[in-house]
Amino acid sequence: MAKLTSREQDYSKWYNELVVKADLAENSGVRGSMVIKPYGYAIWEKMRDELDKRFKATGHQNAYFPLFVPKSLFEAEEKNAEGFAKECAVVTHYRLKTDPNNPQKLIVDPEAKLEEELIVRPTSEAIIWNTYKNWIQSYRDLPILINQWANVVRWEMRTRLFLRTAEFLWQEGHTAHATEQEALEEAQTMLEVYADFAESFMAMPVIKGVKSESERFAGAVETYCIEAMMQDGKALQAGTSHFLGQNFAEAFDVKFTNKEGKTEYAWATSWGVSTRLIGALIMAHSDDQGLVLPPTLAPIQVVIVPIFKGDEQLEAIRSVANEISKALSAKGISVKFDDDEQNKPGWKFAEYELKGVPIRIAMGARDLENKTVEVARRDTLTKQTYPLEGIAETVESLLAEIQKDIYTRALHFREQNIRQVDTFEEFQQVLETQGGFISAHWDGTAEEEEKIKELTKATIRCIPLDAPLEQGTSLLSKKPSSRRVIFAKAY
Amino acid sequence: MAKLTSREQDYSKWYNELVVKADLAENSGVRGSMVIKPYGYAIWEKMRDELDKRFKATGHQNAYFPLFVPKSLFEAEEKNAEGFAKECAVVTHYRLKTDPNNPQKLIVDPEAKLEEELIVRPTSEAIIWNTYKNWIQSYRDLPILINQWANVVRWEMRTRLFLRTAEFLWQEGHTAHATEQEALEEAQTMLEVYADFAESFMAMPVIKGVKSESERFAGAVETYCIEAMMQDGKALQAGTSHFLGQNFAEAFDVKFTNKEGKTEYAWATSWGVSTRLIGALIMAHSDDQGLVLPPTLAPIQVVIVPIFKGDEQLEAIRSVANEISKALSAKGISVKFDDDEQNKPGWKFAEYELKGVPIRIAMGARDLENKTVEVARRDTLTKQTYPLEGIAETVESLLAEIQKDIYTRALHFREQNIRQVDTFEEFQQVLETQGGFISAHWDGTAEEEEKIKELTKATIRCIPLDAPLEQGTSLLSKKPSSRRVIFAKAY
Repeated sequence: MAKLTSREQDYSKWYNELVVKADLAENSGVRGSMVIKPYGYAIWEKMRDELDKRFKATGHQNAYFPLFVPKSLFEAEEKNAEGFAKECAVVTHYRLKTDPNNPQKLIVDPEAKLEEELIVRPTSEAIIWNTYKNWIQSYRDLPILINQWANVVRWEMRTRLFLRTAEFLWQEGHTAHATEQEALEEAQTMLEVYADFAESFMAMPVIKGVKSESERFAGAVETYCIEAMMQDGKALQAGTSHFLGQNFAEAFDVKFTNKEGKTEYAWATSWGVSTRLIGALIMAHSDDQGLVLPPTLAPIQVVIVPIFKGDEQLEAIRSVANEISKALSAKGISVKFDDDEQNKPGWKFAEYELKGVPIRIAMGARDLENKTVEVARRDTLTKQTYPLEGIAETVESLLAEIQKDIYTRALHFREQNIRQVDTFEEFQQVLETQGGFISAHWDGTAEEEEKIKELTKATIRCIPLDAPLEQGTSLLSKKPSSRRVIFAKAY
Repeated sequence: MAKLTSREQDYSKWYNELVVKADLAENSGVRGSMVIKPYGYAIWEKMRDELDKRFKATGHQNAYFPLFVPKSLFEAEEKNAEGFAKECAVVTHYRLKTDPNNPQKLIVDPEAKLEEELIVRPTSEAIIWNTYKNWIQSYRDLPILINQWANVVRWEMRTRLFLRTAEFLWQEGHTAHATEQEALEEAQTMLEVYADFAESFMAMPVIKGVKSESERFAGAVETYCIEAMMQDGKALQAGTSHFLGQNFAEAFDVKFTNKEGKTEYAWATSWGVSTRLIGALIMAHSDDQGLVLPPTLAPIQVVIVPIFKGDEQLEAIRSVANEISKALSAKGISVKFDDDEQNKPGWKFAEYELKGVPIRIAMGARDLENKTVEVARRDTLTKQTYPLEGIAETVESLLAEIQKDIYTRALHFREQNIRQVDTFEEFQQVLETQGGFISAHWDGTAEEEEKIKELTKATIRCIPLDAPLEQGTSLLSKKPSSRRVIFAKAY
């Protein structure tokens, strides 16, 4: 197996190679669309199941809305339409027919042109609010707390596996409320759900914040976000939660009678995370040997590799390995015993490192005699010999330790790579020589933001929710500012 | 709440009303596409989770392939293309722009025309076999056992909620094998998985069989199916498993080196079930009061309705209800305590009957005194008083009994409505006066099949796998036949 390009050498190439070599995904025969392979999909299933549990625990139910959005609905909320019109797939016909010039070929049947074009959903506010209109008459019909797991399509011109694809999988929550306050709280609650998921499940620290106006979701009044730092110091937006005000209710005429008997427009939120999280996961933790997966997300948490000569040794090891597997399974730990005789142990070691299996147990004849096993941690690439007795408990606590350590390492890396900067000269210098996140004052205008982006390619990732009040002057205009924001180059 | 149309009065109307009134689904703003509402989606989630478990237990993994199929791939397998070309959604453009004549409106941007049209997948053999081509070189790469949960689009002209919609949710398994025998066995194994799921989980008896050539999946060599009888005697195809031979391997040039070092085409299967199963579930079991759900699929298995005057009584009942709920939850039984004071008990009874909650527990002041509860079964609409002590065990065994009884009732109904017929006159008469399934001899030709369909609207649902050998003469041509097939009108 050819080695991966190292991160130092070419971070971007390292990422692209790793996604393919670790069997997570590949490009397909359709421009910009990926095939998510079983190993990558197994990680997505774990993310999905955990998020789904958390959505349900916060009172949400799943439902399913149509893939297609008729053009007249698509254009109803003007800003949303404007935001997505430039990159959407449009269905115009509903039939193919045999090419009269070549009976082996099909052509679009011009007689099967749709009266109204259908947009493949890039997001579902339009189709959902058009539905909510019929569901909402009274305050008693509220709140509506619905989530959808679905595919969406955005016609991106420059795509990268997981990070930016024309089609991707995601979940989108769409809620309706009787009051502004309740909708705001919902948007904030879901931000917390995302942040806690990212940190405790993906072992990926995130900064919670709000977007500046220019980075806001098209149609939102406020966009909350979680931003994570990748190992190259760039930022990745890992989830967003939007307070939509009454914009969609007005666009789709969704009114209800409140407790006082007056008619008002409903208040809305929407929030989503996508298969992009797999890209974030890879870039946050993995190394030059391959994936590093937090145990919570690893499709295989423990692999047992026998080191043997001949069937007799293999059988003796197998019988001990079966015991270990049983004990681990009983604890809900997934384990694989790899007795494939086609591949040598060394090959297997490299393979499971590439795949990010958190713990590898190796067992040879000597271990059998000594009643020991060799346990290797994927995250630290360290090995240690443990007694066979109580090995399931050892592995269990080691998995918890690995989960914690991966998070701590990422947090430490982030802390070392957020820098406070007070002048634009310093800003440029830090960005060029060290990268990372820069905490700096901003005058709050789109002009300054745009100018900085033009000059440096860094954008405002967010205004952190916990940013302390602090007097300062902004980088370019030198106007007074009362809190710092986070700048970074971003995926 | 207005009563449902009865099944006797108008079966079709009954179905349509029930789907909407029980909050399962509704029509959307997109022609032929439905909104699956939270209650309907919760049933689908239960089906999906159970099927997914069974697929994994038989060695399959999930993956995800693109929504779009480029036209050149779509047309590669000729029969498959021919089968789906007449009803497919075609993406021709990737951008909208502002209408120069009306800045509020968007129009398709003629400059954003795709070089090659994209078909929204009606099924994924083409895109998947185009991918498998790169995955399969040697017999060591086989078998590939993959399943996908996805949405698909078929431009049906006459649609009905769940039964036939332009977009629907389904799973599609796509496997590749080194030998014909192995692929055949896979197709049969998955048929068994479907049949067992339908019978043990949906409580819906099915006949396992193979399709006649004219009813075969486009591109298949053999289509296995399960057919269920609805309460109006019509048949519903509930799942299909296709042996695809080497058709797709040839079309997409998927060759591998076998153990003997020779190159051959891979052997394929595909198999799927869809949200149509929810339609089958409804029509197999439900009655004039509403849904009848087998406990395995009921989003709420037990509802507790307090019958009280004043807060004091409610609180006393609530405390006992909490105990019951805890005991039921501990057994994995889902339970809801409905203490909503807006609605009277009678209204709630009707509502939960409509929603098909298998068991309703009612508790009043008298019950508190006597340490009893009133338990009503949804399937039989019968009530019985039970001691409070051991109520969780009582409910648990009652749920098992209900599951069994629903199945037995459906089986009994089917047995009463399959009739052996030996002449075409009798065939017509039985079909018109009694309906149901007709077991009759067929000469094996597409001509006779077509003629019978023309004259009676009944089609061959399947050639049952367990049909005994029996000499007879076919209905119209009077040619000799060695086994009976199942005819019926179908959904």
